[in-house]
Amino acid sequence: MLHIDLDKTPKHSPYYLQILEQIRTLIILGRLLPGKRLPPSRQLAKELGVARRTVVSAYEELCEQGYCTSKVGCGTTVSQIPELIQKDKNDNTYGFPKWLLTDTNYTCHSGDWDTDKICFIPSLSHVKYLPMKKMRQAINQTIIQSIPDVLGHYARNNGDPELIQALCQQVLPTRGIQAMPSQILITNGSQHSSSILSMLISPCGGTISYGVPGYLAIPQNFIMRGMTGVACPVDSEGILLTEAAYASRIHYVMPEHHFPQGMTLSPERRSALLQLAEEHDALIIEDDYDSEFYYERHPLPALKDGDLGGRVIYLGTFSKVLFNSLRLGYIVAHPEIIRRLVDIRWQLDGGTSLILQRWIAQLIISGAVERHLRRMRIRYRKRRDLIALYLQELFPEWSWQLPRGGMQFWIELPEGQSAETILDLAAERGVGLWSGANFREPNACEPNVTAENHHLILGYGAIDEFEIHTAFDRLRDLQQHI
Amino acid sequence: MLHIDLDKTPKHSPYYLQILEQIRTLIILGRLLPGKRLPPSRQLAKELGVARRTVVSAYEELCEQGYCTSKVGCGTTVSQIPELIQKDKNDNTYGFPKWLLTDTNYTCHSGDWDTDKICFIPSLSHVKYLPMKKMRQAINQTIIQSIPDVLGHYARNNGDPELIQALCQQVLPTRGIQAMPSQILITNGSQHSSSILSMLISPCGGTISYGVPGYLAIPQNFIMRGMTGVACPVDSEGILLTEAAYASRIHYVMPEHHFPQGMTLSPERRSALLQLAEEHDALIIEDDYDSEFYYERHPLPALKDGDLGGRVIYLGTFSKVLFNSLRLGYIVAHPEIIRRLVDIRWQLDGGTSLILQRWIAQLIISGAVERHLRRMRIRYRKRRDLIALYLQELFPEWSWQLPRGGMQFWIELPEGQSAETILDLAAERGVGLWSGANFREPNACEPNVTAENHHLILGYGAIDEFEIHTAFDRLRDLQQHI
Repeated sequence: MLHIDLDKTPKHSPYYLQILEQIRTLIILGRLLPGKRLPPSRQLAKELGVARRTVVSAYEELCEQGYCTSKVGCGTTVSQIPELIQKDKNDNTYGFPKWLLTDTNYTCHSGDWDTDKICFIPSLSHVKYLPMKKMRQAINQTIIQSIPDVLGHYARNNGDPELIQALCQQVLPTRGIQAMPSQILITNGSQHSSSILSMLISPCGGTISYGVPGYLAIPQNFIMRGMTGVACPVDSEGILLTEAAYASRIHYVMPEHHFPQGMTLSPERRSALLQLAEEHDALIIEDDYDSEFYYERHPLPALKDGDLGGRVIYLGTFSKVLFNSLRLGYIVAHPEIIRRLVDIRWQLDGGTSLILQRWIAQLIISGAVERHLRRMRIRYRKRRDLIALYLQELFPEWSWQLPRGGMQFWIELPEGQSAETILDLAAERGVGLWSGANFREPNACEPNVTAENHHLILGYGAIDEFEIHTAFDRLRDLQQHI
Repeated sequence: MLHIDLDKTPKHSPYYLQILEQIRTLIILGRLLPGKRLPPSRQLAKELGVARRTVVSAYEELCEQGYCTSKVGCGTTVSQIPELIQKDKNDNTYGFPKWLLTDTNYTCHSGDWDTDKICFIPSLSHVKYLPMKKMRQAINQTIIQSIPDVLGHYARNNGDPELIQALCQQVLPTRGIQAMPSQILITNGSQHSSSILSMLISPCGGTISYGVPGYLAIPQNFIMRGMTGVACPVDSEGILLTEAAYASRIHYVMPEHHFPQGMTLSPERRSALLQLAEEHDALIIEDDYDSEFYYERHPLPALKDGDLGGRVIYLGTFSKVLFNSLRLGYIVAHPEIIRRLVDIRWQLDGGTSLILQRWIAQLIISGAVERHLRRMRIRYRKRRDLIALYLQELFPEWSWQLPRGGMQFWIELPEGQSAETILDLAAERGVGLWSGANFREPNACEPNVTAENHHLILGYGAIDEFEIHTAFDRLRDLQQHI
């Protein structure tokens, strides 16, 4: 007797498929052995309360797929199981091609963290205070209004015209940038922007310069695709190009705050960089990832603002302004560059989700984004000031500068203290800290640098004042152990 | 007298920036000439009703940026404009690096169309009948429930666990696929899926086989990255692998309906293909883009279903089930392949927007997607039947098969008729048709094929019955002219 359970709820899949799949599973699992005869179709149909034709269809397909054979007068019997099925399916490499066995070289860090701890995650914004009501209103509006204009329109372009207009009129002017729609490409965030750019630029060869410690996942995109990386030091005036970097094709910079140290590129270095790019026919990639968060003064205008020669490719993102998992960003560049990037990105992934774009356009136009930023500047400044007080009180030997903007402290440890040890001790106390080592990867990006073990990063984007109090309370005895 | 308009509304940008930018614009436009002295800061401040310090800041920055110079006793005067500014900014190549002047090789077609016409767009679903109310409810739920669990969680993974679960439990079983969460990667649609796969596979070299005419944008991703393409013919049983294709590393197939012709891969060819992949240690990419739309019988189970050796990489998408501009899809493959793809895609773009994923998960779980599919199957079948009647009546010489599924007719023209001519004549009458030439690109993908000019494609995914009547009414006299 064959035990078959038919799902007869309204959403059931076709009966013949259910019968087919359940019998096949029994065969694969060895519960129905080769030579075993299946019950006559008429009998099984009666048992299951379905039409005989349904069972016949299932049996026919089982034969077609090689699990059974059927002979007039003998009914349907289970076949010898094909050899393939008998291989050990628990062997992880089984079915995995030999030529693919090497691992990939992709080492991009994720922002993964331990949710049991209070974590000072760098560069993650706080979603708890997002303007949820406005966000719901805007998405409702988007869904209502955008049929069929938005959802139905699927054409190769540089992004949703409404979002592009909102960027040109409301967002970019706050960074001193005057751009035309043809200078914009909407992307899925800055990592995606840099991938698309690297697909355009890397085939031309040459070098890319970048500051270290720094956010290496972006230059890595170019290096992975064939460019040579030139790591440069970062001092109190921002990235300091070495002579080896002068003739770079690409300079990757974060002028407002170099991540993670937070230095602002000085006006002198800005002019020199623009001049250098002009002289060497080079491009500058300006990653302006969190300049919206400033606490002392308005940020300097973007480097793109002084870019009279059109050498600067500006990367903007909503990851910090709103939230990381939104995956929405944009590139501002020469229209001829944008035109090529549109070709590349269409082949890559067919564009950014239009509903996301229109949604964020609505949020910008309504002023909700700007209001959210104003509120978050106040919150982040309070957190920053609170952390500064605790650091002065509990760890007077640590050396740091009060961040004028951004979402993290960069702390230099005194001689003899090890970031690794401190991270471990903090983890034991339920507090997550980050080490500078995360931004000096021991790979091709950055040769000749000894292991980094003397910097800490404390992010305050995604941690409340209450959590800050609790965390430092837990760290109160740490000083004695380091 | 300097004419400066200050924006003093609540959302204004800082006054010093407004002053700075307006003066700079006057200099760049030549309205303030070199040597011209700016009004004393005290005077301008009074005129504008701002603090003197504000004007001084603007002047200081103008000097820093090289637009002005300042001398004690002489005030601030306009400098010689830097040479850069004087270059012709209308020259499109100005500021565009010489080494980038070549065009890209990316030729992926967009689904662009003329909105003045009634268009039989292939492979585009109808957004007019989307379950808007359910979609709004689901996104509202998503935004309310998902703080901070979803929005705040930004960690490298293979996708939103809820969407993955919904796929494993509700979507994939309808295609006969039993998959574990570790076998899934959420992507931004099938084009994106194929890009990520090509980044993993192409560096290993070898060949990729695919059917022609067909959807070439996917094999192109592999060929662009270094693999050799082997174009194979497609007959009534689906793709027919040529001998040159036997040893391919990758076979790209659309078993349920080969696009755009619509043939279903026969059971014999399915078995042979799986066997071939096993013998040659190869992988099969199964693009299952619109099997949800069937009109005569349930579709055959996915090739992935019979994939006992784990050789099949299954590509699913919501582009047809919901809408193209959503940009959401998934890969089902061996967990070891998924693990590597996660690395690649994290470096590429940092994951798919979580809010989109959770939204669609809610829509699947609520049953709204399945109900939408049931309704659309009925609509699409009606449209198909209506078009069939018109084709029989008006163009009896054209040869075609009634599509058993999918969203388009593939029409063969009789000797002496030219697709190009028919497209032109239809366009004159306000009707948009597609030519088979779109799926036989004259590039490296497909050598040795003469220009395609004898097939038409009529898509009925995004065209109403009323529009179908109107369109054929306009085409009523066409037969006389071809």
